[in-house]
Amino acid sequence: MTITSPQGFRASGVTAGLKASGTSDVALVVNDGPSDVAACVYTSNRCKANPVLWSEQVTADGRAKAVVLNSGGANCYTGPEGFQTTHASAELVAERLGMGAIDVVVCSTGLIGDQLDRDKLSAGIERAADALSAGGGTAAAEAIMTTDTRSKESERSGDGWTVGGMAKGAGMLAPALATMLVVITTDAQLDSAVADRALRAATRVTFDRLDSDGCMSTNDTVLLMSSGASGVKPDEAVFTARLTEVCHDLAQQLLSDAEGADHDIAIEVVNAASEDDAVEVGRSVARSNLFKAAVFGKDPNWGRILASVGTTGAVFEPGELDVAMNGVWICRGGEPGDSRELVDLNEREVSVTVDLKAGTESATIWTNDLTHAYVHENSAYST
Amino acid sequence: MTITSPQGFRASGVTAGLKASGTSDVALVVNDGPSDVAACVYTSNRCKANPVLWSEQVTADGRAKAVVLNSGGANCYTGPEGFQTTHASAELVAERLGMGAIDVVVCSTGLIGDQLDRDKLSAGIERAADALSAGGGTAAAEAIMTTDTRSKESERSGDGWTVGGMAKGAGMLAPALATMLVVITTDAQLDSAVADRALRAATRVTFDRLDSDGCMSTNDTVLLMSSGASGVKPDEAVFTARLTEVCHDLAQQLLSDAEGADHDIAIEVVNAASEDDAVEVGRSVARSNLFKAAVFGKDPNWGRILASVGTTGAVFEPGELDVAMNGVWICRGGEPGDSRELVDLNEREVSVTVDLKAGTESATIWTNDLTHAYVHENSAYST
Repeated sequence: MTITSPQGFRASGVTAGLKASGTSDVALVVNDGPSDVAACVYTSNRCKANPVLWSEQVTADGRAKAVVLNSGGANCYTGPEGFQTTHASAELVAERLGMGAIDVVVCSTGLIGDQLDRDKLSAGIERAADALSAGGGTAAAEAIMTTDTRSKESERSGDGWTVGGMAKGAGMLAPALATMLVVITTDAQLDSAVADRALRAATRVTFDRLDSDGCMSTNDTVLLMSSGASGVKPDEAVFTARLTEVCHDLAQQLLSDAEGADHDIAIEVVNAASEDDAVEVGRSVARSNLFKAAVFGKDPNWGRILASVGTTGAVFEPGELDVAMNGVWICRGGEPGDSRELVDLNEREVSVTVDLKAGTESATIWTNDLTHAYVHENSAYST
Repeated sequence: MTITSPQGFRASGVTAGLKASGTSDVALVVNDGPSDVAACVYTSNRCKANPVLWSEQVTADGRAKAVVLNSGGANCYTGPEGFQTTHASAELVAERLGMGAIDVVVCSTGLIGDQLDRDKLSAGIERAADALSAGGGTAAAEAIMTTDTRSKESERSGDGWTVGGMAKGAGMLAPALATMLVVITTDAQLDSAVADRALRAATRVTFDRLDSDGCMSTNDTVLLMSSGASGVKPDEAVFTARLTEVCHDLAQQLLSDAEGADHDIAIEVVNAASEDDAVEVGRSVARSNLFKAAVFGKDPNWGRILASVGTTGAVFEPGELDVAMNGVWICRGGEPGDSRELVDLNEREVSVTVDLKAGTESATIWTNDLTHAYVHENSAYST
C-alpha cells in the first residue's frame, strides 16, 4: 500500500527541521533498477518553482534514478539562490547514492517566496540517505505533508507487477495538471514512451479533474518511476488502467483531506456536445464560491449552479437544462423541478448532475465546499 | 444625490411583501420627458432572467419611459410562467402611466428559481404608481436592496444638467457587464447613439472591473434614461466623463458593501503589453480564494499573487515581476524584496500593484477579501 511495495525501490522520511511543527520534512525515494525509466507531468503555471525548473531538465530524457522531496518551503520565487539550493540537493543525493545529479528529481512544497535553509536541508538529505530502506515508503509519504491531516498512499497490482503511489496536497488543488506532489513507483517493465503515455492518460482524468479551490500551485509534480524489477512487461492498456486507479484513489484522498472542507462534491456533466464542454461546465460550477458556500450551508441552491453554467461557452439551450443534487432533479427544463426540500446534504459526499442535452459526452469534476475552516486555515497559513 | 435629482423624473419605493424581512421591495422610476432616450447593458450570462429577456426587447430601439424593479425574487429559471409575470408587470405599469408596455423596463433581484407572487407584485406596482414623486429617488434606491446593508446613490452635474444614479448589489459581483441593478437618470439631451456609447464606455472601466466574488449574476442590468428636460445638449466627452464618475462612485459603494467583506482590494496591473493583459492578470488575482483569504488574515502572502499571475496568458517574464502591497515592494524581479513585515493590512483599503514590465498599458480590478462572514452569509441565504 505504498511506494516501496513494488520491487526495486527504497525510501525514507526524516526530520530536517524545515517545518516549525517539527514533524518529518525530507523524503527520499530511490529506484534501484534495473530500469530507470521515468515520466513526469508538471504544473502548467508559468510561475514555476525552482525544483520544477530543475526537474523538467532531469526527466526530459525519460529517465530518473531518485527523487528528493521536502516540505516546509516551496522554493518558489526565490531566484538564483533558490535554484542553487535545488541543484545542491540533487548534487548531494547523487554523491551519496552514486549517480549523476541529472538523474535526481527534486520536489518542494510549502510557503512561496522564502529561501530554504540549505544547511538544514543538506543535513536532512544525509540522514535520509542513511535511512533508506525497502520498508520506508510510509515514512516518505509522511515527510511530504504540509497542511495535510493524513498521509496519502495507494497501490494496485497486475499479473506479476505492482504500482504504488504517495501524494501530498490539501490546498491549491486545481487544474492543468498535477497540483500536488505525487510519486508513483512500479516494478513493471516500461519503455519511456509507454510510461509517458500511461501517466498522461491517467492524470488527465484524475488529478486534472480535481478543482478543490480554483488555485493552481507553482510546484505541482507527478512523477512515475519504473524499476522493471518484476521482469514483467505488462499490456499497455492494463497498466494504464491500474495506474489510473492509483491516481484516482490518491486524487480522492486529496479531495477528502482538502483544507477545511465539510463536503466532497462530484459534479457530473452529462449529454454534452464534447468532453471539453463537459469539463468546462463542471469546472465553472466547481469554482462558484456562492454554490460552494451554499453546499456548506446544506442549501441545495441550484440557481447558483445554473448561473455558473451560463458563464460557459458550452453548447446548450438555457431552457432545456436539467440539474440534480444527490439524485433529486430539482431543475427540469430550466424550471423548478422536484422540491429542493427533498435534497439531503447532511452526508460528506454530494453529487451534482448537470444534463446539457446537447450530445453524448460526459465528465466529472471533483471539488469541495467553501467553509469557515477553509477561510480560517488559509488566512493564517504563513503567520 | 439621487435619481430624481435630474429634472423630468419621478420615483417611488413601496412594500409589496415579497421579502420575508418586510422592508420595501418594489421601485418605480418614470421618465416624464420630453425625451425618452435610453441605453442599457445586460449580463453576459447565457442563463438570463426573465426580466432581462423582456427588457432587452424594450431597450432595443434606444427608448424607454419607465422602469419597475423588485427585490425579493430574481424571476430567473422560472420558465414561461415567470416571463408572464414580467410581462404582466410591464403591462400594469403601462396602463397606470399611459404608455405602451414595450416602453417599460423590468428588473428583478433575489433568489433564483422561485416564482414571484404575481398578486403581491401587482398590488405593489399599483401602490408604487400612486406614490410616484419628484422626491422619490431614495425610496426607490431602498426598495431594490437585497443583502445590501445600505442604499447606493450618486450624482454629478455638468453645465446646466445632472446625472443621478442608484444601485443594488452585494454579492454575485463579477465581470462581463453590470452584475447588479443600476438605474441612471439624466436631464441632459442625448440622442440614442450618444447614450449608448457613453454608457458602454462608462461601464467598461467601472462595473466591468468589479469582481467581488467571481460569480456572474443572471439579472444584471444597467439602465440609463435621459429626459432631456434640462434643454442642454452636453459635449459627449464631458457627459461620458461625468457618467463614468457616477458609475465609478456606485461601483465603489457596491464594493464597500460586498457581502461579509473586511477589505476592499484594488489590484492595479501596470506596464502591461495590452489593456486586455492587465485586465486578465488583475481578474486572475481577484479570483484567488487563497490570496483573498490571506488578506482577510492580514497576511501579505505575495506568493499567492504570483501563483495567480502565472495562470494567465499575459506577456511577462516570471523572473522580472515586481509586486507591491500598500506601496511596499515585497517582490522585486521575481524574488523576495522589501520585508513583508512592513505591509500593514489593518485598514479596509488595500492596494496591490503588479508590474509586468512588458509594456505601457494598465488597468485596475476591484475585489474584496474572503471572510468567515462571506461564507456565513452565502451558506444561509436561501434558507
